[in-house]
Amino acid sequence: METKTHINTILGSKDYLEFLRGKSATFLLSLSTTKTLEIPGITQAGIPGLIHLTPTLDSEFLCSGEVRCLENLAETPKGVPTPALITRAVHLLKPFRNLEIMDLGMSQKPNLEYFKVHDFQINPSQAINRGAGIDAMKIFQQGVEFGKSYECDSDYIILAESVPAGTTTAYATALALGYDCAGKFSSSFKNSPDDVKEQTVKDALNNIKTKDDLFERIGEVSDNMLIFNAGFVLGNSSTSKKLILAGGTQMAAVLLLANSIVNYMGGKLDSSNIALCTTKWVHEDTDSDIKSLLEMLDFSINAYSANFDFTKSNHPALKLYDEGEAKEGVGAGGALCYGLINGLNEEDIIKQVEAFLG
Amino acid sequence: METKTHINTILGSKDYLEFLRGKSATFLLSLSTTKTLEIPGITQAGIPGLIHLTPTLDSEFLCSGEVRCLENLAETPKGVPTPALITRAVHLLKPFRNLEIMDLGMSQKPNLEYFKVHDFQINPSQAINRGAGIDAMKIFQQGVEFGKSYECDSDYIILAESVPAGTTTAYATALALGYDCAGKFSSSFKNSPDDVKEQTVKDALNNIKTKDDLFERIGEVSDNMLIFNAGFVLGNSSTSKKLILAGGTQMAAVLLLANSIVNYMGGKLDSSNIALCTTKWVHEDTDSDIKSLLEMLDFSINAYSANFDFTKSNHPALKLYDEGEAKEGVGAGGALCYGLINGLNEEDIIKQVEAFLG
Repeated sequence: METKTHINTILGSKDYLEFLRGKSATFLLSLSTTKTLEIPGITQAGIPGLIHLTPTLDSEFLCSGEVRCLENLAETPKGVPTPALITRAVHLLKPFRNLEIMDLGMSQKPNLEYFKVHDFQINPSQAINRGAGIDAMKIFQQGVEFGKSYECDSDYIILAESVPAGTTTAYATALALGYDCAGKFSSSFKNSPDDVKEQTVKDALNNIKTKDDLFERIGEVSDNMLIFNAGFVLGNSSTSKKLILAGGTQMAAVLLLANSIVNYMGGKLDSSNIALCTTKWVHEDTDSDIKSLLEMLDFSINAYSANFDFTKSNHPALKLYDEGEAKEGVGAGGALCYGLINGLNEEDIIKQVEAFLG
Repeated sequence: METKTHINTILGSKDYLEFLRGKSATFLLSLSTTKTLEIPGITQAGIPGLIHLTPTLDSEFLCSGEVRCLENLAETPKGVPTPALITRAVHLLKPFRNLEIMDLGMSQKPNLEYFKVHDFQINPSQAINRGAGIDAMKIFQQGVEFGKSYECDSDYIILAESVPAGTTTAYATALALGYDCAGKFSSSFKNSPDDVKEQTVKDALNNIKTKDDLFERIGEVSDNMLIFNAGFVLGNSSTSKKLILAGGTQMAAVLLLANSIVNYMGGKLDSSNIALCTTKWVHEDTDSDIKSLLEMLDFSINAYSANFDFTKSNHPALKLYDEGEAKEGVGAGGALCYGLINGLNEEDIIKQVEAFLG
């Protein structure tokens, strides 16, 4: 009798999310800087010249409603406001039980009191066209340990990210792992800067030496968020805690990396407690293909998109989302799914997002 | 970037309340009678001749939605309904996880089943103009013990009060402790009955003997709620449980008393887990100054007021709040802050309060 489907199932069983209706969630925001973002034209996820601060500003705004390390909220040169607005709107209307920050190599720590900021003593990674220089085995193991030992007093975890230029490192990672994924990765641009992106990824892959093992390869072309969270997924799978990866093709790359590592180690992943939740803008993006990326996994996965857009809004900055200028980030898709399975409706969320913009 | 701020920060960090978004709360209502209320013209917090029943009626209404020891809800002679309506409205729309009662010397027990009523075997205190006659050391120690050992299955505690004539005893207490606080204490009246109040406080202070120690002085001029809760604050600070003092200048007096006792004992209070939440009517009251009272503390404190009033209501009885005829009580300010950080909006709360009045 539901007239509108709030959630679209991309893959797997509808029941995973149905089971989570009414349950409490901890929202874990993982933040990392890759100097890949400094390559001209590679990303529009933030304020030109200050894009390295986007993870810091996103986490401040999500937790406190304020940006503290700068005067204004991160927005793209075209005026697209950060998807953190969507996640914050959901949190105001139907709060997560906990909000916690994971510092996986930020260029600047967020200015927050009381909120838990997990510090893993990880530095920002280098630009992948010159070699990311990540100790991938170490960071992966940190992720596994954290995923195994992490305790929260909520029913499930929503794991999100903010990593500018992260779709480029995600694409390079998947290619380095041997997945046939050309044209399947998303971008924060409407018209993806294919030349810059493809050239950067090509340069990155050229840094890989034939004798490199899986972790050495990844350490050259990936970013801290992807590697740590692949470990987190594996560590968490040994617990009974349900985990939602809140993101688009970057979170798909986390799963592809986890998949490759499991195969490399000759293990097997019980994926029954894992799902991926993203936005409609990613799900319906014709320039990328998240479903196809997820179908490359050797395990089955539940994946959903929130049936939410700004059709009913009149705000020009928000309309840019519907036009494809921004699609996902700061767990917007996962937050929307969480809100929609807990009684919020599209209109309320739109109104709250509009209120931020004045 | 939020167009309307739901919460105003009086002092300290915005992040304390932001951190509590989505977390569960136990609402502890501490109730006490001081015979000070029998002094003609001292208070309008209730029905003339039956004001000693106000704590009983407030607790019955808050827990059950009914007044049982009387036919009608407590209202002032001018028809201002008790702030218990506001707290009850929030509890209906976004229930506290627990509601519990602390009997700190009520003249009559509330007629309630199932609800936990903590009984400390404390009698109502005497009128302060003739000496309150409180064993302050004993009651303080009971508060410390209870604060240390109290366990609840929620994330934080909201501690509220209903004590008619309580601003007078709070004022006398702060003066007896040596705080320069003339003109800084609130009243349930719009035009505070300064003569009666000042004379009562003067008489009270005259009962103090030079040789009296801190506890003996307080025992003459204070009330059970202030003394017990000063102990509760100190006892609770040895746990990691966050505590919101829900009230105006009376709760400020609880903190001033805790501050004096800590100094008297040569200790130090970790106040990082404590906040005070009150109403806009107290925060913006020109006849009192809660901010200045809190600034007299030797420790830092987070303090907030709920950005809520009855401007959008057409009910004449509620308009009296906006005119200053009632300002706080039964944890109204703390309840409003709790509701507003958990997705309620002003309109919903107003509609619910209006529904009680018919």
